[in-house]
Amino acid sequence: MKLATLRTAVGTTAALIEEDTALLLSYNDAGAALSAAPFDKLTQAFTGESIPLADAQFAPVVPRPSKIICVGLNYADHIAEMGNATPSAPTCFAKFAEALIGAADPIHLPAPAISAMVDWEVELAVVIGSPVRHASVSEARRAIAGFTVLNDISMRDWQKRTSQFLLGKTWENATPIGPWITGTDELDDGSGLAIRCSVNGTIKQESNTNELVFGAVDLVSEISKVITLSPGDIIATGTPGGVGFGREPQEFLAEGDLVETEIDGIGKLANKCIQV
Amino acid sequence: MKLATLRTAVGTTAALIEEDTALLLSYNDAGAALSAAPFDKLTQAFTGESIPLADAQFAPVVPRPSKIICVGLNYADHIAEMGNATPSAPTCFAKFAEALIGAADPIHLPAPAISAMVDWEVELAVVIGSPVRHASVSEARRAIAGFTVLNDISMRDWQKRTSQFLLGKTWENATPIGPWITGTDELDDGSGLAIRCSVNGTIKQESNTNELVFGAVDLVSEISKVITLSPGDIIATGTPGGVGFGREPQEFLAEGDLVETEIDGIGKLANKCIQV
Repeated sequence: MKLATLRTAVGTTAALIEEDTALLLSYNDAGAALSAAPFDKLTQAFTGESIPLADAQFAPVVPRPSKIICVGLNYADHIAEMGNATPSAPTCFAKFAEALIGAADPIHLPAPAISAMVDWEVELAVVIGSPVRHASVSEARRAIAGFTVLNDISMRDWQKRTSQFLLGKTWENATPIGPWITGTDELDDGSGLAIRCSVNGTIKQESNTNELVFGAVDLVSEISKVITLSPGDIIATGTPGGVGFGREPQEFLAEGDLVETEIDGIGKLANKCIQV
Repeated sequence: MKLATLRTAVGTTAALIEEDTALLLSYNDAGAALSAAPFDKLTQAFTGESIPLADAQFAPVVPRPSKIICVGLNYADHIAEMGNATPSAPTCFAKFAEALIGAADPIHLPAPAISAMVDWEVELAVVIGSPVRHASVSEARRAIAGFTVLNDISMRDWQKRTSQFLLGKTWENATPIGPWITGTDELDDGSGLAIRCSVNGTIKQESNTNELVFGAVDLVSEISKVITLSPGDIIATGTPGGVGFGREPQEFLAEGDLVETEIDGIGKLANKCIQV
């Protein structure tokens, strides 16, 4: 099953995606849907109205998650290119909901005088389906509704000017997420998925979620020691090698660049960089 | 003016505190009140119902802020005790709403096997009153509704096991905030306020907000370069010297300990540590 949030003339609506059709649900967005009912019961909320998938306008798949937790340094190749040692615990930082944009929305670049080091990071994102705290591995597995694609656009100068990443990671209207949540019924625990990022048609990152140091289930279990994870909460699991900061010479995004981030079994985000 | 969020039999209510009386407002909490009206217009929302302040049960003063941004290493004496250099930019990390508790609520300690390094951090917290992005100094000053007290309880082992502080800073039900927001009409820009923390009656931290490296207005201006700050958003400005981690020998909180955090001109939090 695939669950999206679509823009309508009067706001947003949750929708199930079946082949080339979006079946509109009686919830305002995917986060509200997951809070109200288990993923596999959402067909009962079908309004009877559907639209062609080609006409769908994707909002951030969960527009207002209560928490977005991002994991850094979680693919062996990315750890190497950033010059870090393999961690024994997941490196977690936050992002706020105002950062999120939809699957085809433009990435808002900062003015060049504020940051000129805007970088890409394709990531597998876990979407929580049911509340969980102090989760065992099996409880963590059951708490996951599914997975989506997140492009953790990073302002490297702001990320690295102090020890803490937050301000370089939560730029407004600069984190594409979507296009939909593909359920664990299709993706199991999120392992074994090919993941890639291209800029203007050139592949920059290409890996597989099997390369994750800490997988989706482990992350849910570990983070739930600290805080309750709730329906619609997002855990971005980290990015593989090939980011612009790790290249020789370094590469960063500029106005007009098209960033495409894709995970097999989920889908693709295509976002153009604009100066606002 | 002083604005609080009080627990009632049926949820919470915003209230203005005038001397020994709480005047109940027609908003569910202080965050909703600040989103709906300027601080100095809130008297118009008085329901006509009031209770003695002595009977007030304080909820987290903003129960569900859309963002809680914390600043590390922002008092010269705390920077020295943690062994860090004076920063040229504010070190910002996040905390999630599930961490927040009220002015007299118990601090939920983790099981000792999970963390036994629970530490105190009294902080001046800025509360945003109106939306602001790319704020000049004067715009930043106007966007601040007022100030409250926040005890940024920190699990030092989790804070320090990776480069990123988040998991050591956002423990569920472990960040007291309140008891109310004292407005800029009384506190101006939040400078010049005596700030202290005691544990079981012994003073552990004692300083003045004049010692802040980055003051409230500067923080609002800087963070607003990245993201829109919205009514009810919280910026915890950092803690002075005297935390348990920096003592010789180190000291940490245990079951039954009473932590009192206080800022002159605002008020006091008194929270007992419990094992849950």
